[in-house]
Amino acid sequence: MVRFFAPAQELQGETLTLTGDAARHGAVLRLKAGELVEVCDGEGTVCTCRVVSSGSNTLSLSVEDRHPSDTEAKVSVTVYMAYSKSDKLEHVIQKATELGAAQIVAFPSARCVARPDERGLEKKLERWQKIAASAAEQSGRGVIPKVTTLKTYADALREASLSDLGILFYEHEEALTLRNALEGKNLHSVSILTGPEGGLEEREVEQARQAGLQVCTLGKRVLRCETAPLCALAAIMYHTGEF
Amino acid sequence: MVRFFAPAQELQGETLTLTGDAARHGAVLRLKAGELVEVCDGEGTVCTCRVVSSGSNTLSLSVEDRHPSDTEAKVSVTVYMAYSKSDKLEHVIQKATELGAAQIVAFPSARCVARPDERGLEKKLERWQKIAASAAEQSGRGVIPKVTTLKTYADALREASLSDLGILFYEHEEALTLRNALEGKNLHSVSILTGPEGGLEEREVEQARQAGLQVCTLGKRVLRCETAPLCALAAIMYHTGEF
Repeated sequence: MVRFFAPAQELQGETLTLTGDAARHGAVLRLKAGELVEVCDGEGTVCTCRVVSSGSNTLSLSVEDRHPSDTEAKVSVTVYMAYSKSDKLEHVIQKATELGAAQIVAFPSARCVARPDERGLEKKLERWQKIAASAAEQSGRGVIPKVTTLKTYADALREASLSDLGILFYEHEEALTLRNALEGKNLHSVSILTGPEGGLEEREVEQARQAGLQVCTLGKRVLRCETAPLCALAAIMYHTGEF
Repeated sequence: MVRFFAPAQELQGETLTLTGDAARHGAVLRLKAGELVEVCDGEGTVCTCRVVSSGSNTLSLSVEDRHPSDTEAKVSVTVYMAYSKSDKLEHVIQKATELGAAQIVAFPSARCVARPDERGLEKKLERWQKIAASAAEQSGRGVIPKVTTLKTYADALREASLSDLGILFYEHEEALTLRNALEGKNLHSVSILTGPEGGLEEREVEQARQAGLQVCTLGKRVLRCETAPLCALAAIMYHTGEF
């Protein structure tokens, strides 16, 4: 069934009149009266709807059923990624969304070479949010992960430590595996934190420990900054029974 | 320690005289006499060497120690990926190498839109092998995964079925999870098979079952053709105790 996203405020009532992107999307798909489609608010609610009429500016639908999305992960994983070159960050936003991340947060660290300035940030965030929305739509998710940024590394540690489990991945850690950190815990939320191209500094890793994060290895092969969070996310989804 | 690859035939004897890329690499790094470096043959052997002299065309080394690489995965995973757009295939070659794949194999399937012709293939393979070599070097691997291609889908099924476990991932499979397929087995080799942008056809999935492959889900979210093999590979590495 065709599925698309529309703002939550357009999804009230028993008949829906969608405008903007959703209507244009409907027109492109040449939806016909009587067809069934799914409209999702990007916050976890999915409406099964019948097309009443489809024009280039408005798509009229009658709601047949409203239910919570069943494609969301059981455990809420937030991906904290140090600012990296733009294409890498965008890559992680797209892939982490597919893999089921609840939220994606970019933060600065000592060795970050790429960091958007205050003025450029708003545009970047808009672009990043669009990448997440498009990946969510394509992968059939019911929730569009929020993409946000933090001003300091300390902010990232503080926020990550509020999860049931906060993990920082460090290429020089050898003892604590991700499995050790996950096993035997009943987790509802996990935060994972990874460094930029040049890695995290040792004092930053120490700072993370002091903030209550577990410092873990992702194995003996050194992963690129865009590979590490996705590898960890896939493993956590596997561990928590998603596939 | 700086590590680089050199052809196995240059790594014989107690003193090494490297030429070509390795020598140029040494010159770029401004190696000095007395420094320790690692030279790897890309087939699992690592030499710890002391620099005797470094010029732009030759790098002279004395071998201090020769040992098997300790960064290879315990289980040999071969990634069979249907031909996809060039950037996706190259992406998977790079990332699968980082994640520890033993081999990467491209094969045709019914809905493949991109498929190199016979003439272009040799050049492509050379390029793909270079991507694997570069990713192996960067991630500290001792083995450069071989990148190969197969002429038919049936060939891919036949080869994959020779592993201890052959798995095909299919977005319409709901029952068999990767965990179910892996659990309780003592595996030395695993083959994973994924489809192209447009997915595999149902008859192809049936063909895989008949060839003895397990047909598994990667969860409720639909993954892109370049995300699925990497997600599965990360999960298998996690399952087999790599991190």
